[in-house]
Amino acid sequence: MDFSLSEEQLAYRDTARQFSDKALAPFAAEWDAESHFPVETLREAGALGFMGLYTPEEAGGLGLPRLDAAMVFEELSQGCTSTTAFITIHNMATWMVATFGGDEVRAEWCPALTTGERLASYCLTEPGAGSDAASLKTSARRDGDDYILNGTKAFISGAGSTDVLVLMARTGAAGPGGVSCFLVPADSAGISYGRNEDKMGWKSQPTRQVNLENVRVPARYRLGDEGEGFRIAMRGLDGGRINIASCSLGAASAALAQATEYVQTRQQFGQALAEFQTVQFRLADMATQLVAARQMVYLAAWKLDQGDAERTLYCAMAKRLATDLCFDICNDALQLHGGYGYIREYPLERYLRDARVHQILEGTNEIMRVIIARRLLAGATA
Amino acid sequence: MDFSLSEEQLAYRDTARQFSDKALAPFAAEWDAESHFPVETLREAGALGFMGLYTPEEAGGLGLPRLDAAMVFEELSQGCTSTTAFITIHNMATWMVATFGGDEVRAEWCPALTTGERLASYCLTEPGAGSDAASLKTSARRDGDDYILNGTKAFISGAGSTDVLVLMARTGAAGPGGVSCFLVPADSAGISYGRNEDKMGWKSQPTRQVNLENVRVPARYRLGDEGEGFRIAMRGLDGGRINIASCSLGAASAALAQATEYVQTRQQFGQALAEFQTVQFRLADMATQLVAARQMVYLAAWKLDQGDAERTLYCAMAKRLATDLCFDICNDALQLHGGYGYIREYPLERYLRDARVHQILEGTNEIMRVIIARRLLAGATA
Amino acid sequence: MDFSLSEEQLAYRDTARQFSDKALAPFAAEWDAESHFPVETLREAGALGFMGLYTPEEAGGLGLPRLDAAMVFEELSQGCTSTTAFITIHNMATWMVATFGGDEVRAEWCPALTTGERLASYCLTEPGAGSDAASLKTSARRDGDDYILNGTKAFISGAGSTDVLVLMARTGAAGPGGVSCFLVPADSAGISYGRNEDKMGWKSQPTRQVNLENVRVPARYRLGDEGEGFRIAMRGLDGGRINIASCSLGAASAALAQATEYVQTRQQFGQALAEFQTVQFRLADMATQLVAARQMVYLAAWKLDQGDAERTLYCAMAKRLATDLCFDICNDALQLHGGYGYIREYPLERYLRDARVHQILEGTNEIMRVIIARRLLAGATA
Amino acid sequence: MDFSLSEEQLAYRDTARQFSDKALAPFAAEWDAESHFPVETLREAGALGFMGLYTPEEAGGLGLPRLDAAMVFEELSQGCTSTTAFITIHNMATWMVATFGGDEVRAEWCPALTTGERLASYCLTEPGAGSDAASLKTSARRDGDDYILNGTKAFISGAGSTDVLVLMARTGAAGPGGVSCFLVPADSAGISYGRNEDKMGWKSQPTRQVNLENVRVPARYRLGDEGEGFRIAMRGLDGGRINIASCSLGAASAALAQATEYVQTRQQFGQALAEFQTVQFRLADMATQLVAARQMVYLAAWKLDQGDAERTLYCAMAKRLATDLCFDICNDALQLHGGYGYIREYPLERYLRDARVHQILEGTNEIMRVIIARRLLAGATA
Repeated sequence: MDFSLSEEQLAYRDTARQFSDKALAPFAAEWDAESHFPVETLREAGALGFMGLYTPEEAGGLGLPRLDAAMVFEELSQGCTSTTAFITIHNMATWMVATFGGDEVRAEWCPALTTGERLASYCLTEPGAGSDAASLKTSARRDGDDYILNGTKAFISGAGSTDVLVLMARTGAAGPGGVSCFLVPADSAGISYGRNEDKMGWKSQPTRQVNLENVRVPARYRLGDEGEGFRIAMRGLDGGRINIASCSLGAASAALAQATEYVQTRQQFGQALAEFQTVQFRLADMATQLVAARQMVYLAAWKLDQGDAERTLYCAMAKRLATDLCFDICNDALQLHGGYGYIREYPLERYLRDARVHQILEGTNEIMRVIIARRLLAGATA
Repeated sequence: MDFSLSEEQLAYRDTARQFSDKALAPFAAEWDAESHFPVETLREAGALGFMGLYTPEEAGGLGLPRLDAAMVFEELSQGCTSTTAFITIHNMATWMVATFGGDEVRAEWCPALTTGERLASYCLTEPGAGSDAASLKTSARRDGDDYILNGTKAFISGAGSTDVLVLMARTGAAGPGGVSCFLVPADSAGISYGRNEDKMGWKSQPTRQVNLENVRVPARYRLGDEGEGFRIAMRGLDGGRINIASCSLGAASAALAQATEYVQTRQQFGQALAEFQTVQFRLADMATQLVAARQMVYLAAWKLDQGDAERTLYCAMAKRLATDLCFDICNDALQLHGGYGYIREYPLERYLRDARVHQILEGTNEIMRVIIARRLLAGATA
Repeated sequence: MDFSLSEEQLAYRDTARQFSDKALAPFAAEWDAESHFPVETLREAGALGFMGLYTPEEAGGLGLPRLDAAMVFEELSQGCTSTTAFITIHNMATWMVATFGGDEVRAEWCPALTTGERLASYCLTEPGAGSDAASLKTSARRDGDDYILNGTKAFISGAGSTDVLVLMARTGAAGPGGVSCFLVPADSAGISYGRNEDKMGWKSQPTRQVNLENVRVPARYRLGDEGEGFRIAMRGLDGGRINIASCSLGAASAALAQATEYVQTRQQFGQALAEFQTVQFRLADMATQLVAARQMVYLAAWKLDQGDAERTLYCAMAKRLATDLCFDICNDALQLHGGYGYIREYPLERYLRDARVHQILEGTNEIMRVIIARRLLAGATA
Repeated sequence: MDFSLSEEQLAYRDTARQFSDKALAPFAAEWDAESHFPVETLREAGALGFMGLYTPEEAGGLGLPRLDAAMVFEELSQGCTSTTAFITIHNMATWMVATFGGDEVRAEWCPALTTGERLASYCLTEPGAGSDAASLKTSARRDGDDYILNGTKAFISGAGSTDVLVLMARTGAAGPGGVSCFLVPADSAGISYGRNEDKMGWKSQPTRQVNLENVRVPARYRLGDEGEGFRIAMRGLDGGRINIASCSLGAASAALAQATEYVQTRQQFGQALAEFQTVQFRLADMATQLVAARQMVYLAAWKLDQGDAERTLYCAMAKRLATDLCFDICNDALQLHGGYGYIREYPLERYLRDARVHQILEGTNEIMRVIIARRLLAGATA
């Protein structure tokens, strides 16, 4: 067991930190206030390799382990959690194209996806279906060399502003076995987009419904075999959970750093807040929770990299724990700022709003518990 | 001990509920989205007596006990927590004018304040001073029949849109004994207002800095004697804490009601959410917390009405517990809605954003603990 | 709404406090250490009316409301939680005899039960059945003017040292409708008792299995009609939950009082513990939780006294909240004592051990949540 | 970063597990009930190297890293937490003798200590001083080639049954700089022992006061230089905190394993407890907490092994988090067992009683927060 970071990890982390400090943090408040999707910044991130971090090198990515990617996301997220969360989704979708797509589709799309020249959305959820992904209704009917897609996808990050949809649709019978995965060009005829949902946070990325009406997709754009879609989705989710948990780590790190600085400058009752023992204890608990959350994420990412038999269990535990603890850290940091924590001049309430959805996305934290319990009762030992 | 409600309490509660359902709830989302201060609606509330609930009848108020007022605020807050929170502040300021003002000032201002024709802001906090109210720096220098006021007040609810400022300023030496209380017409020469703070919530009421530069106020507008200001502020705060706690009860009640309904209609994995035992247990805990919070608020309001020697202790306990538990209830209700809890089409994220500041205002919940501990160590028994 | 105590309530509370201070507190540690069941002390309690607090006056009890009884139990429990918990069980069983028994059985047993001359155990639980009371297997077969009872009861408080068993047995079909309630003299032929269970706490009352082998009970000892047993048990449980919650209040009150005193005398790092802000805040939270728990218990007891339609809901909420919060208070008080909290020379670890079982008994706190959720989903509003 | 265990770690863990299963687990309940200190078993542990796990090989120990030792303690503690906790104390004291003692004292004592032939107690705490170790009053006055020791030590594990006391005494001025460390033979003239404290748990190891009245100790038994004692104590504490945290991991692991098995066999309401979703979620949270706690302990142990500049910070975080979370896991496991969790026939209540003191010992968890906050405010980043 060795907890040290490799040279490479340190280097990527530093690069990410610099990019985060320079290209994300100074603009995050504005993007939040104006619901601005910073496409240009995403391209800059792509130039550094951040749009295809764990996409294989042969498909244009950096081919990093998930653990290293998690560290990068954690750094980026300190600058702008919402934007980084989109970056992680793009990374996941790009990895799916590269991993499950045929040579042709990879050659056609991966170069532009890994550089961020083109952006990808991931389309699994449907209206009213939430975490119950296996019940999806969007259909894909084979028609010669094409598939004809019909249905509706909900809560799609980036939708309307991205170029590619990686989309799950039903080609077969009910249940998980009837689902297939497709790359759908976002401007295909028959696709229309709903309004940009007005969300609590994650405002620097649009969220829209995607309506598909007789959308014709070439069969070569199917990723994996027919019926493999749910399996692909599930494989993606393990990593997706690590990613979203990493974004929570970033938000919480930023919140804790802000709070630690603030309590040392802010005076109340004739002394700095940091002199009050209750403030000290709160900082201590926030820091302890942050380290615990981070270790869980790293452990799960490592298990995913190892192909460990219990990787799904550990990814679920990491996502559950990290997103819960990090929300609490953001919330505590807000409280330590008093009234200043509540106004948008300070970033605290934004951290909280952005981090809140991580307890819901990529399978709610309740679904995580279902996954964890299932493994425990099947004999996995914690 | 008798926990039943009187006929009068039931009647006021019903009236409040109807007003809340009709005049607040349907507009709350819009007021939040557009940062609209619903002055007309406040006048309608005034017509029902809600702008002077516990202001003495001889000054035009309803003269209700604090307990009854708390019940009214709780109902109103279910419709719009942010607007109701302003109503409670107006009530407190109006009560101060009626209780500590001389006959002349009462006759001049109270009729219009109790009907909501004119609106009042409460000006205690200063930039950087937060909960340390006794250190305030705004000065009031006697000059003939006037006082000349100079200084800055921060986080003032309603400021810029209200007619009257009930304001604490220093007429004497440092510390609490040097503070006096004034009614300051909001349009007095020398007053300027800062920008409307962009807050996390409470968006239906403006929050601004108030800058006073040689503002001349007639001496008869002083409320109470010179040096009595801090005592007045503290007396106001006991009630203010009940009020804000009542607003939290309202937000949490609305959130719990929404969630209870939602889980019975929303299907996941082939059954209503309400069929999942973990959902049931969460509802059970939310309801239990709500009842516990409400009982604490009622008990404290009753002690305040009785002039109980430990009323400050109980008001602090009620504010601390109710605002914490009710935030958690709002947050849990959001989680039960999954992705729908995170978008503004549903009210859950608004409840959370509005309720969040109650843990900070009127003395942070940390200050509440200071107050509680001080009394316990002085021999009060819980 | 009126939170004041009546003259009578104050008087009973004082009497209980004096008895608790004089007859219970000084001996509690010894009874715990030696697993001594203080029968003589129970008789003294009976002389004051504490063994039949809410048993009707015509049956020899004091006929107090449940609310008043709860206050008495709370006081007694401060002296010895374990012994008081037995007193509450005896009170419940005695009330059942008085309420559901025929004239003859009442005349025969109630005088001695209400004075504590004779002691009663309550026999509902069976081995392996836990909170699933309706599945009980102990049988009662009619045989002429008698019933013949066979079966086993588990975790019976007082068993082996009491005179009367109030016992649920099946006279009819499976399910709750087939259960009847009996008074069984504890020395009836065919009854044998298991060993005194070695428990974590509650050591001043024995807990044994009760084995019934062809135990003959006169039909007049049936309480209520055939098939009414489960309903009687459920009616008893509402009050039983109030009772046990009251015992938790007592343990927590004693723990908080001890801790408040201790932190003011104990020095660390050159000052009293009470000078540390974190200690102050912890006391503040303990006190706030205690008041909240107590208010819930009083509210539920009042609803029970009123015959409120939702009394079962409120009793379940009170039991759940009070027993959980009070355990935490005991645990926090232990922690404030450091190493001294962990040794038996101080009462803290005993408070914790005794209070722990209240989260399990009279329906686990999980069962409480089942009850609460069922009512909420049936339309009850919190 | 590499989370895999080495061959050696796996081998030691297996050996420890076997010893735990065979030599500890079957007897733990009896040792607890009878307050039996299993000296013979400690010798068996010594034969396997477990009494000098991280004592350098040249002094007869195994010379393992702290991380490896932590894994061994975790396994042993599953069998008997109380006994293992003593083993960790013996390990710490032995390591101190080996690390800070001169060649002579090492040669004289270490062989018998590392094999468990002789047992060691660690004497830092004094009556009324608790975590404020620097204020200790026990004096050591130089007298020729000896020191004369006078004073009292409190809460000494093993005292009265051990052969060696590693003891801190004041040789110089007040404060930490005046403290020196001594090896004191337990049977020295002038030493007397108090009664075996009756504790909540940790009953398989005696805890006594140690009274020193003109106890003569050869100067060569001083460990380290004069004035170095506090530094030695503090160095020991970093490891001591890892050790005690590891014991909590073991208790919690055993509790979780028991609960996981129990809920699959125990039926309620016609199905296994494991079928209830709330039971599943609780298991999931327990497992997640356990993994998080364990990762923190391993990380801190690794930092200690690396001589990391922030090792004290991480040891404090690990001790705080692991002992808190693991107590909660034990408590949850007890609750899942219902009434059976409360009786001594099952080990749950013992796990809870044993684990409870870990939140107090080796610096209370409040002191841990002081340490953590101090480092954070000095610029350490979490």
